Amino acid sequence: MSIPLIRLMPGRDKRAKAGHPWVFSNEVAMTPETKALPPGAVVRLEGDDGVKHGVWHFNPHSLIAARVLDRDPGMVVGEGWFRARIAAALALRQRMFAAPFYRLVHAEADGLPGLVIDRYGDTVVLQANTAGMEAATPWIVAALHELVRPETIVARNDSGVRALEMLPLETVRLHGDASRAWAEEGGLRFPIDLDAGQKTGWFHDQREHRARIASLAQGATVLDAFCHTGGFGLQAAARGAASVTLLDASQHALDLAMEAAADAGVAERVTPRRADAMEDLPRIEGHFDIVIVDPPAFAKARKDNPAALRAYGKLARIAAERVAKGGFLFIASCSHHVAPGEFADAVLWGALRVKRDARILHQGGAGPDHPLHPALPESAYLKAVLLQFP
Amino acid sequence: MSIPLIRLMPGRDKRAKAGHPWVFSNEVAMTPETKALPPGAVVRLEGDDGVKHGVWHFNPHSLIAARVLDRDPGMVVGEGWFRARIAAALALRQRMFAAPFYRLVHAEADGLPGLVIDRYGDTVVLQANTAGMEAATPWIVAALHELVRPETIVARNDSGVRALEMLPLETVRLHGDASRAWAEEGGLRFPIDLDAGQKTGWFHDQREHRARIASLAQGATVLDAFCHTGGFGLQAAARGAASVTLLDASQHALDLAMEAAADAGVAERVTPRRADAMEDLPRIEGHFDIVIVDPPAFAKARKDNPAALRAYGKLARIAAERVAKGGFLFIASCSHHVAPGEFADAVLWGALRVKRDARILHQGGAGPDHPLHPALPESAYLKAVLLQFP
Repeated sequence: MSIPLIRLMPGRDKRAKAGHPWVFSNEVAMTPETKALPPGAVVRLEGDDGVKHGVWHFNPHSLIAARVLDRDPGMVVGEGWFRARIAAALALRQRMFAAPFYRLVHAEADGLPGLVIDRYGDTVVLQANTAGMEAATPWIVAALHELVRPETIVARNDSGVRALEMLPLETVRLHGDASRAWAEEGGLRFPIDLDAGQKTGWFHDQREHRARIASLAQGATVLDAFCHTGGFGLQAAARGAASVTLLDASQHALDLAMEAAADAGVAERVTPRRADAMEDLPRIEGHFDIVIVDPPAFAKARKDNPAALRAYGKLARIAAERVAKGGFLFIASCSHHVAPGEFADAVLWGALRVKRDARILHQGGAGPDHPLHPALPESAYLKAVLLQFP
Repeated sequence: MSIPLIRLMPGRDKRAKAGHPWVFSNEVAMTPETKALPPGAVVRLEGDDGVKHGVWHFNPHSLIAARVLDRDPGMVVGEGWFRARIAAALALRQRMFAAPFYRLVHAEADGLPGLVIDRYGDTVVLQANTAGMEAATPWIVAALHELVRPETIVARNDSGVRALEMLPLETVRLHGDASRAWAEEGGLRFPIDLDAGQKTGWFHDQREHRARIASLAQGATVLDAFCHTGGFGLQAAARGAASVTLLDASQHALDLAMEAAADAGVAERVTPRRADAMEDLPRIEGHFDIVIVDPPAFAKARKDNPAALRAYGKLARIAAERVAKGGFLFIASCSHHVAPGEFADAVLWGALRVKRDARILHQGGAGPDHPLHPALPESAYLKAVLLQFP
């Protein structure tokens, strides 16, 4: 079996040698043979000095031209290799979580670059965000059948990042025909629309933050802005919140949230409110013991960063104005292009403009089913700050 | 009642206006009357422009000359004021924790600059680290009697930072005569030596990290280095660890840990090992599923920073070498002078020198009973990283 060889340009091997999982297109010697390789090919990578850097996925049309699969240059990357990597990711999640609801594979950090898999019990939703993972999907599906035995496998291959790899945006049903799944968390069940939900349909990454907020909720009035399907607000309701206002611009998300509220038996304490939170927060009357603001990413690209930081500052200010005396403000950002320190600074700048004392109780990121590759600290996209106002 | 007035130098009011809780000695107009104020005096602070900045503690001999008590210039800071501040701190902890074991007051972030109070059920241990809090101790004790009704109150006023305020280092029994208390956490009880323990005798700040490690421990072999009284290792044992090695240089700490192990009924799975962890880690045979390294601060001053970062890198390397395949490394720093990003970089540099793949599962700080003042981000002294090695 012959695996094509691609070679780094002279002097462009420093990051590969240091363990970085990516090679950029301007670091590869783009010979006619290399350029002609099919997107997603499995290749061997060598430096100009002949040092072997192992087996990589390659896409001659992508800025990130190669992503490491295995540092062993003799490794056969086939069904068995994928099964072993997914089995290791599964074993880690099974050690961390009592129930089968988690991000099963988190791309580079789980040694499977470009691949995301979320698990909702018997339903598995994957995102193959590179040509290499697109090509490997049959092996991935075979491994999932063997390891997880899911009833439903859906590829939500509709993320915009696929365009960078010249891949179509589409949703593909790989196994089963269910259109609905359920995420179980904090003793509640949340319905997931497998075809039209955001991302894979549920955000496992905020699990620990939702538990933290719920633990504060006994007797509290709660405002959950950008609530999506109600993960924060409904867990607060289940833990004894006096009243919960769910605020979102999507009627579909609010409908799913109210279905979850009914399922949990808390609907009579929950009020949905359809509106753009940025416009609506200054108009809402009264104050709340707990205010949650978990917006979609404000910075879609690095150039959006200054505007995004201003928007986070403004959001923190208008949200802080809604917090009752002694109450809490939880605010999060999932913008890849906003660094944790920048976000915290913007939030504090905004929240402190309301001229109240404040304590920072917690700063955190995504849960441990969203590990980070040590060479990609910038992949820590989720940032959250919890403040209390005495 | 006349409260002395001190005045800021011209142009030195920017931080006070922005809500910073400190004024440095070179920012105060040091008139003969100001210089003659007793350390710990309650003063009113005004800018050179006549703007009133409220009521502050003042010490003419300290680099941090003034610490804000209340932004209201007419506030009477007496027993009632201390009772209100401690009551607010208590209400926040009671909302966050089911049992009375927590840091009750965390200095500036709780509006009580220089004052630390840890609670162990009916025992309260305080640290008055400024002349102002030393002078206010009778009011603080009165408030504690009213709010907490403790059987024992001890002032562990032996922290080196008291020297900066020209205060003696001493341990003072303010109420009761017990020499022993118990910290309850994770279903276990840990004995506390009120006279000779480190700091106040127990580190509430690692509570969430201990729970996180314990949740991974079923069936695991565990090495707890710099274990102090065994908080990490024994909670892991109680959650089903197969074996736990407790490593510490202090026989007294190990004795208290083994007393806790016996109390929890896990002593037969726990082995104490008295040694300097830095020297001993490379000598320990075998590998462990979970390795914990939670050393005392390596950087006691800012100038120690480069050496401290090298030491954290070395510690991460020799600890990572002890981690079994699929295992976990938890490493923490409580050095005030090492920033979170610096620490993570040093840990990754060291841990990755062992040439193994690694995932970052979690990065975190102290628990929410150790809030941060929004203007003092550098007071986020505790930093922790959890890695897994596939």
